[in-house]
Amino acid sequence: MVCNMVESKTLQFSSKGNCDIIDITPQVGQAIDECGVDSGTVTVFITGSTAGVTTVEYERGLIGDLEKLFERIAPGNIPYGHDARWGDGNGHSHVRASLLGASVVVPFNNKRLMLGTWQQIIVIDFDNRPRNRTVMLQIMGE
Amino acid sequence: MVCNMVESKTLQFSSKGNCDIIDITPQVGQAIDECGVDSGTVTVFITGSTAGVTTVEYERGLIGDLEKLFERIAPGNIPYGHDARWGDGNGHSHVRASLLGASVVVPFNNKRLMLGTWQQIIVIDFDNRPRNRTVMLQIMGE
Amino acid sequence: MVCNMVESKTLQFSSKGNCDIIDITPQVGQAIDECGVDSGTVTVFITGSTAGVTTVEYERGLIGDLEKLFERIAPGNIPYGHDARWGDGNGHSHVRASLLGASVVVPFNNKRLMLGTWQQIIVIDFDNRPRNRTVMLQIMGE
Repeated sequence: MVCNMVESKTLQFSSKGNCDIIDITPQVGQAIDECGVDSGTVTVFITGSTAGVTTVEYERGLIGDLEKLFERIAPGNIPYGHDARWGDGNGHSHVRASLLGASVVVPFNNKRLMLGTWQQIIVIDFDNRPRNRTVMLQIMGE
Repeated sequence: MVCNMVESKTLQFSSKGNCDIIDITPQVGQAIDECGVDSGTVTVFITGSTAGVTTVEYERGLIGDLEKLFERIAPGNIPYGHDARWGDGNGHSHVRASLLGASVVVPFNNKRLMLGTWQQIIVIDFDNRPRNRTVMLQIMGE
Repeated sequence: MVCNMVESKTLQFSSKGNCDIIDITPQVGQAIDECGVDSGTVTVFITGSTAGVTTVEYERGLIGDLEKLFERIAPGNIPYGHDARWGDGNGHSHVRASLLGASVVVPFNNKRLMLGTWQQIIVIDFDNRPRNRTVMLQIMGE
């Protein structure tokens, strides 16, 4: 009988903010390679409230298209209650992050992430300034 | 060898609907405290199709900003096919909920949720009337 | 002492693309029925970068309402950098998929999915042509 396991890994990197989009697929794949779990799920969770996680075909055209999408639905140049109260100027960053979501859960089998050929795991940093970012990988399985 | 465990917990509360935003972080943290699992993930899942789950810096300014975001992208005062067919008047609630998503998965280690300092777990109730709500917490780990 | 288990199941089906919305709840429920796990979570993950996964009350009105929602926030008839670079004509499909997300995690207990009465698990295929689709179900629990 095989028992399941939990392994945690922390990714740390710097971002430029302002819709900086970072492909973390290689780091997630490496964590799967190095851990003691063969098959299961990796929960990719970004700590902080001005960045989100999702998947995309990581290529320059779509990087710009995603930035325009978020500018359409949560423009940077309209008033936000958060900015009126706290003066951070990043109200748009917060609501974009909440809409996108802080976690994505990706299955893997025999050490291989079950991603599509043109599907990468990304962090979008919506904040209005450069940031140091922490992504938690919680790897669970057997 | 440590074996993994599954523990379920149900949160129940009432909401005012109409984009009522409820911080459930204390209840999720208490469930982690009280369960037999030290490290793993908690899947926060809202049953029902007119509410969603995400994370945010829970403060009054952003509460209003999130409401305005959803009013921009899925206004309450435009026609919806759902309302034409069923007369519920909550077509906007359903599409907002589908876009936001019903689940978020949060890692925890040594009984501590891996949230950022200003990052809370919230339910947004998009329905057009007060509701009693049920959130399922599925805690898994070892 | 009960040990956890991981079971993988692949769903394959064809879609019409262009915001085709497919209810996969019966297939997910069947996978839970047939697997060796009684309680835990099922991670529903779509491989590929032009489709997403979420939950909805699956009825004809909302199917059309969701399509209109995505047409509002990521219209098909505006320029996309992805299309300029690659000529695929599906830039809108990619950004919609990234926004919606590739995974949803649904708890189940005693073989029963913890969904609301009117809450189904769906795939939305945003691509601009018919596709064969693969959904990975990673079932974990005990």
